[in-house]
Amino acid sequence: MSDSQTSVAELKQLVQEFVEARRWREFHTPKNLATSILIEGAELCEHFQWLTPEQSLELAGQVDASSPIAEELADIFSYVLATANALEVDLSEALRRKMLKNAIKYPLPDWSLGWSSPSARSPAASVPKQA
Amino acid sequence: MSDSQTSVAELKQLVQEFVEARRWREFHTPKNLATSILIEGAELCEHFQWLTPEQSLELAGQVDASSPIAEELADIFSYVLATANALEVDLSEALRRKMLKNAIKYPLPDWSLGWSSPSARSPAASVPKQA
Amino acid sequence: MSDSQTSVAELKQLVQEFVEARRWREFHTPKNLATSILIEGAELCEHFQWLTPEQSLELAGQVDASSPIAEELADIFSYVLATANALEVDLSEALRRKMLKNAIKYPLPDWSLGWSSPSARSPAASVPKQA
Amino acid sequence: MSDSQTSVAELKQLVQEFVEARRWREFHTPKNLATSILIEGAELCEHFQWLTPEQSLELAGQVDASSPIAEELADIFSYVLATANALEVDLSEALRRKMLKNAIKYPLPDWSLGWSSPSARSPAASVPKQA
Repeated sequence: MSDSQTSVAELKQLVQEFVEARRWREFHTPKNLATSILIEGAELCEHFQWLTPEQSLELAGQVDASSPIAEELADIFSYVLATANALEVDLSEALRRKMLKNAIKYPLPDWSLGWSSPSARSPAASVPKQA
Repeated sequence: MSDSQTSVAELKQLVQEFVEARRWREFHTPKNLATSILIEGAELCEHFQWLTPEQSLELAGQVDASSPIAEELADIFSYVLATANALEVDLSEALRRKMLKNAIKYPLPDWSLGWSSPSARSPAASVPKQA
Repeated sequence: MSDSQTSVAELKQLVQEFVEARRWREFHTPKNLATSILIEGAELCEHFQWLTPEQSLELAGQVDASSPIAEELADIFSYVLATANALEVDLSEALRRKMLKNAIKYPLPDWSLGWSSPSARSPAASVPKQA
Repeated sequence: MSDSQTSVAELKQLVQEFVEARRWREFHTPKNLATSILIEGAELCEHFQWLTPEQSLELAGQVDASSPIAEELADIFSYVLATANALEVDLSEALRRKMLKNAIKYPLPDWSLGWSSPSARSPAASVPKQA
């Protein structure tokens, strides 16, 4: 029942049934759900609020699926799925299309082709300005 | 290539390869990624900022996978996947565990069993206090 | 000791001394403080998460200075002041300059001059698109 | 017209008049305003998204009142003031009360009294867990 054996549609369905059974649909407007993603996102941020970047990195591999941090991530994910349900968006298709657009916006640097020059790796150049 | 044919692991892999190829890993600390979920979440919220709940509902079914709203949702999703990658969290397992916990916290109301009394459906009682 | 008798500088000073006395300055990087505004902002949002706009309006005049909602607002404000301290920004000047810019971006509608035509008040036209 | 010469009430008034003149009051529900604080907060965060804490610190003293970063801070501040207006909250009083509560929650460490022992300054102990 892990990520490799679970389709996005199965998880959308899980969230959908939970919401329907509780008759929460009237509360699940796109406007409320988008704000809920932010509210849960802030709870995840709280875990890292005063950590250095390095301290936050040390958490990798120590976060099992029922830890508080994984629970916050699950909460955010559940609202992403609920928003996709409410707006009838195919997440996999939306993600693939956006990644294609990102790939054009952030073309592969020379080094990924094996012949980068050191000057191409200046710190400034590698700071992503993602959107 | 839709949600029903795509595993969560495939999308994690897609994001992982994108990040690795651009050598963005050093920027992808859990702390930075959690804040990035918030930044993208706020961009989604902006689309609904001054809409009434009803106006936001009217968008359902009108948001195709390459529309600006679907792109914002894809951006949030990509950072959820990147955070799961950075923290080595199985999202499907984390979500299922959290939903089980939610099911205990928000037990099914009487009406879902087919014999609810009208008094059980008071608006106050049905306002979800989710976490 | 109310808003009419308190300068912005006094409140900046109050926050500054609190931070210095606890030697929190090293944690108060602009990056951490900006995220903290978001974290506290999300806690304020939580109070309104499942309310209708109308229900949220009914709270006006019922929120005294020590209620949970006022406390969340105070938390956000304290981080705004801390960020201004860390970045050495004069908030009053920054606000006045931004409001002047906003006044150009959102010119006064006809009706404010007393001779508006009904057509100028179409709902679409009055939806603010603020930035 | 700087922070030392400006009362909080003057800035509340400035925002109030701007909103009234544009008839935006109907949009300025506490629910919408709280979300707007988050939206503007996220735009401030974007400036620091991929910076190290140290890089964000280097911005201190370089942010004049009309720079993009000061404008984002002004935007957040304007929504804090608008929320206080909508909810009829005295911000100075709310802030002072909350700071008193924080002072109890985070008592002054020994070192601030001049006789701290080195062991009292362990990094872990000084990580603020603010709320």
